[in-house]
Amino acid sequence: MIKFSIVGTTGYVGIELLRLLQQHPEAEAACLISNSQAGKALVDLYPQFRDSKFSGCRLVNYEEADLSDTDIVFTALPHGVSQDIVAELYNKGLKIIDMSGDFRYTDTAVYEKWYNEKHKYPKLNEKAVFGLVELNREKIRKADLIANPGCYVTASLLGLIPLVTKNIIDLDNIIIDAKSGVSGAGKSLKITNLFNEVHENMKAYNVATHRHTSEIENVLSELCGRKGSEGIQVLFTPHLIPIKRGILATIYVDLKDKYSQEEIMKIYQEYYQGEPFVQILEDEMPEIKQVVGSNYCLIGLKYDPRTDKLIIITALDNMVKGAAGQAIQNMNVIFGIKENTGLEARAVYP
Amino acid sequence: MIKFSIVGTTGYVGIELLRLLQQHPEAEAACLISNSQAGKALVDLYPQFRDSKFSGCRLVNYEEADLSDTDIVFTALPHGVSQDIVAELYNKGLKIIDMSGDFRYTDTAVYEKWYNEKHKYPKLNEKAVFGLVELNREKIRKADLIANPGCYVTASLLGLIPLVTKNIIDLDNIIIDAKSGVSGAGKSLKITNLFNEVHENMKAYNVATHRHTSEIENVLSELCGRKGSEGIQVLFTPHLIPIKRGILATIYVDLKDKYSQEEIMKIYQEYYQGEPFVQILEDEMPEIKQVVGSNYCLIGLKYDPRTDKLIIITALDNMVKGAAGQAIQNMNVIFGIKENTGLEARAVYP
Amino acid sequence: MIKFSIVGTTGYVGIELLRLLQQHPEAEAACLISNSQAGKALVDLYPQFRDSKFSGCRLVNYEEADLSDTDIVFTALPHGVSQDIVAELYNKGLKIIDMSGDFRYTDTAVYEKWYNEKHKYPKLNEKAVFGLVELNREKIRKADLIANPGCYVTASLLGLIPLVTKNIIDLDNIIIDAKSGVSGAGKSLKITNLFNEVHENMKAYNVATHRHTSEIENVLSELCGRKGSEGIQVLFTPHLIPIKRGILATIYVDLKDKYSQEEIMKIYQEYYQGEPFVQILEDEMPEIKQVVGSNYCLIGLKYDPRTDKLIIITALDNMVKGAAGQAIQNMNVIFGIKENTGLEARAVYP
Amino acid sequence: MIKFSIVGTTGYVGIELLRLLQQHPEAEAACLISNSQAGKALVDLYPQFRDSKFSGCRLVNYEEADLSDTDIVFTALPHGVSQDIVAELYNKGLKIIDMSGDFRYTDTAVYEKWYNEKHKYPKLNEKAVFGLVELNREKIRKADLIANPGCYVTASLLGLIPLVTKNIIDLDNIIIDAKSGVSGAGKSLKITNLFNEVHENMKAYNVATHRHTSEIENVLSELCGRKGSEGIQVLFTPHLIPIKRGILATIYVDLKDKYSQEEIMKIYQEYYQGEPFVQILEDEMPEIKQVVGSNYCLIGLKYDPRTDKLIIITALDNMVKGAAGQAIQNMNVIFGIKENTGLEARAVYP
Repeated sequence: MIKFSIVGTTGYVGIELLRLLQQHPEAEAACLISNSQAGKALVDLYPQFRDSKFSGCRLVNYEEADLSDTDIVFTALPHGVSQDIVAELYNKGLKIIDMSGDFRYTDTAVYEKWYNEKHKYPKLNEKAVFGLVELNREKIRKADLIANPGCYVTASLLGLIPLVTKNIIDLDNIIIDAKSGVSGAGKSLKITNLFNEVHENMKAYNVATHRHTSEIENVLSELCGRKGSEGIQVLFTPHLIPIKRGILATIYVDLKDKYSQEEIMKIYQEYYQGEPFVQILEDEMPEIKQVVGSNYCLIGLKYDPRTDKLIIITALDNMVKGAAGQAIQNMNVIFGIKENTGLEARAVYP
Repeated sequence: MIKFSIVGTTGYVGIELLRLLQQHPEAEAACLISNSQAGKALVDLYPQFRDSKFSGCRLVNYEEADLSDTDIVFTALPHGVSQDIVAELYNKGLKIIDMSGDFRYTDTAVYEKWYNEKHKYPKLNEKAVFGLVELNREKIRKADLIANPGCYVTASLLGLIPLVTKNIIDLDNIIIDAKSGVSGAGKSLKITNLFNEVHENMKAYNVATHRHTSEIENVLSELCGRKGSEGIQVLFTPHLIPIKRGILATIYVDLKDKYSQEEIMKIYQEYYQGEPFVQILEDEMPEIKQVVGSNYCLIGLKYDPRTDKLIIITALDNMVKGAAGQAIQNMNVIFGIKENTGLEARAVYP
Repeated sequence: MIKFSIVGTTGYVGIELLRLLQQHPEAEAACLISNSQAGKALVDLYPQFRDSKFSGCRLVNYEEADLSDTDIVFTALPHGVSQDIVAELYNKGLKIIDMSGDFRYTDTAVYEKWYNEKHKYPKLNEKAVFGLVELNREKIRKADLIANPGCYVTASLLGLIPLVTKNIIDLDNIIIDAKSGVSGAGKSLKITNLFNEVHENMKAYNVATHRHTSEIENVLSELCGRKGSEGIQVLFTPHLIPIKRGILATIYVDLKDKYSQEEIMKIYQEYYQGEPFVQILEDEMPEIKQVVGSNYCLIGLKYDPRTDKLIIITALDNMVKGAAGQAIQNMNVIFGIKENTGLEARAVYP
Repeated sequence: MIKFSIVGTTGYVGIELLRLLQQHPEAEAACLISNSQAGKALVDLYPQFRDSKFSGCRLVNYEEADLSDTDIVFTALPHGVSQDIVAELYNKGLKIIDMSGDFRYTDTAVYEKWYNEKHKYPKLNEKAVFGLVELNREKIRKADLIANPGCYVTASLLGLIPLVTKNIIDLDNIIIDAKSGVSGAGKSLKITNLFNEVHENMKAYNVATHRHTSEIENVLSELCGRKGSEGIQVLFTPHLIPIKRGILATIYVDLKDKYSQEEIMKIYQEYYQGEPFVQILEDEMPEIKQVVGSNYCLIGLKYDPRTDKLIIITALDNMVKGAAGQAIQNMNVIFGIKENTGLEARAVYP
């Protein structure tokens, strides 16, 4: 059995970890930490966990948590706050999967520029492994600190990595038009997250300035060996859509040479062969309803001979493959168990 | 292993059966029958089943289906149509769980009155067991034909049975104001099911004439030994709400004597003690988000001393406890395996 | 021209007043008051008012507002807070339409009991007129202080008044099961108002304890001359539904004698004859989509011969007939102009 | 008074025309034509028109309609079907505003290619004026046949015309990523329009092949004098979003030279100066909730110095500025009355 703890249990990501781990045959809860709700019974806040394997759990304060028999900790905290906790846990010898943006950059300077604050643990940052399993499976096996990728980042990278690896697109004209459900914004009390402001509405936000831009660029640049001011620059536009879960990323690239639809398809199929959670659709584009509640990422492809552009569309559930599910996938890799353990659920439809 | 077949696979209930059975360790697909989609691969219609245990399945015609190694058949067909198929399967010696209204009435005459058509198999109807496990667990164990209860009916009965059993309410003033998500209407092409007609809308429908009224009355009347024109009459008002899944039933009854909130609570807790899927909330009323995607029914209670009325609110997912999940619960009982096998998933939240 | 001011302009009700008054040919803005946004231009907060007759408006502080040429003030403030402002404005000789619950009760004691606080201006409260135009049109003409009715209250009373006036129902068994969109909760920052908590969810709240219960009872009791402990008691259950606008009230009553559907229909048609904003449907029940964005209240009726109960369903837009539209209707009556001036818009459909 | 008739009254566009014309002081209904609902009273289908100026209207068959005193006809029919009706009406000497795609192309060959059928009235097509008032106001004044622009087309063109007119962007790298509410799909009975298929879902459709692509290209090409195979080619990707009304178009272009954000802003402000329905936002991006129910198109701009791209975002209500409102704007221009007559309503918020 893997004994896990969560820091930040009562936010959406924490609860999603519990929902998924409830069906994970190898996982057992050690400490469920929540400073805001410490002392309360989990089931009093979330009655859906009655009679579950977590039904006896009580939330504890971080300061009072006994992590002595914990094998792995999920830290589901805001960036900045997360750093200190992660450093402390790391120094205690614990394995950590961090859901924040704090350890996702190989180049600490990029983090500091986009997050506009000093990183307090640059040394630790160097040890962190970016937890996109499809890219870093071998490194993850041996890692002690995983930086779980951002949700938009996962959707964008899974769509772009095969092309960048193959070096067949113009790296200076990548456009990612991404649409996200509202759960990506977390359980925070902002006017912009109110039902009345979101429903029957849609909008773009942080246009040309969203932090996930840099996270995408960081990985792609490294993939093709570009550094610093030579790094790849993408144009990333996030939109808020009135659904709870799901990201649809519509990606536009220019192909350097002529390719048929079939050749493109083959590149993706080969790249993702054997991957348990990435699926290439034929002759259709993915829809959010095909992934909600599941850890799958679906990819659709369309080559437009008129404009010589390739359109790649990826769909995933931001709470699962974009957050909690991917974290558990990382956990499974670290502990050497079957990668889809506890993650076999399929889309809840309709 | 239990080998199951489905007649009517590609409707919402059929697909929900597959979603749930995909995670049922004892279930294996024999024939997935769909006359409208026969010949197609399941994954071409529903890509969410790629790489699943059903990924190799192809839909077959009912007439061509080989059911020789099938242990149990789920019939997910419209009422009327279902009768003939069920009779045929029954005569072949198959166990059947029927999702339609065709075999839910102990009194065939009531069926004929509310459905306004002759029942072709009254004899078979007498052999059918009404598949509300919380009421008929023992009969279900030995049954060959289960009539899976209607979704509204399940939500209403689970709220009323403890009171009727205890004989503590006025049986002539029961009001059930029920609200349902749209998946209850199935995948049928009607103007009233269009997104543009449903979204940002709500309405009551079939006021005072909905067929589920009679299904509720049939069970309650039998429970307290009332028959024919002496039978219990309830006022049942269904409403359509712009959500996909979920039923919330607000039930109003008059208590014959004075009871405290605690006494009422105790009656329910005792009645449902040990039930794996019914939970009584304390000091709060259930919300749909606490059950979506799960087989649980939550019940909240509020005694109003001003009007001497008791308000009972029940919440369940009409696709799971109200249809496919309850059917699998019945299957588990029939085959003597743990009742919650394959049904342990908790609410998808948010 | 009628010069109006608003206290509490930037909340949902304030903005809805502006949306409607923008199309009112006789209305002109004097002061748009908002202490939280004072100094800002209206169009910077709400770009939809660019190039409108309010496009030059800047929000001002209550303390600094010059109300010398104001004819009427709409106070859109929380109860309790509203009292002091209303008293002050009243003493300045201004006409006021108050959107809060502070002046809606003829019996101050009932207010104090349900709102659990002392009313500071009981004398003023006696002068206030309850602004349900369909009930109090003549009194409103001469009023200086209008208490604009609550949204649930409007939906409930318009459904019940004809029956209570005719004295044909059992006054001890009235059940109102009401469903509301989320805009009724205002623009307040609460977890329960977040998109992720409301969407694909529904719930009952304040069961048997919602304040609007007493507001409904206060009017009905007076209508039939019942007082104090003899007053009518209704059971009122509000539900939150994932739509932005709209209330659907499903009302259950027992008729004292036998009536045909036609007789009931006639009672309503006669009672509301000539009313510009109340419409009785024949052979159908109202839907929210038929009233969204408009000041109309639709009423549907169904007599159930099985249970001898009458089901009345009313539908209105809580932001219009339930708040801002009704306030303007009151204003029109006070100033003796055509009652539907500025309120002629029909439902936005789909 | 302008006497109008509608062919295709009971679809969404027809009803939206009535909703808007109900508040148009110069418009009066002549014939409301609907072959599918002929003989029925309008208010029996749409109770929201009770007591309105259309409350006496009965739907009539096209063949039986007396158009002798009609000044202008709105044809709200599917393309293909529309041609014959329009030709017939034109020959009777009637002015026509056609909502279909049939007469929107200056180059008939482009129509025939993208719609994959022969145009039966190429001569008439040459006489039609493309009804984007902001582009063709003078021509519209004298036109007898207006082709009302497509909804996506309006959103795209209003965002691009200033740049193309100024000739400051690379015409070979225009990407339009558009998101639409479901009302754009009309009231047609398709599985893909069902609530259960659309809600909590999103998807792209007709990727790289949507007909509106050619309509956009046709106008832009003409604007810069490019013809035939030299014509501008844009990449247009429509997405379906679970809202009823609204289009958000996110447009990506490459600037040929360096411009500051201010310079770009000034170009748009100058181009649209005096336009009653186009508004350029400063320092913010438009949201659908700012335009729902209104005839306004809001435009936001963001120059990204990192990638040298300009992002233009436009928002409009597809039922109003994208269909019925724009048609009435055209009508107003034709009859020489104030352009915003009947179109002054602002966004319904929240």
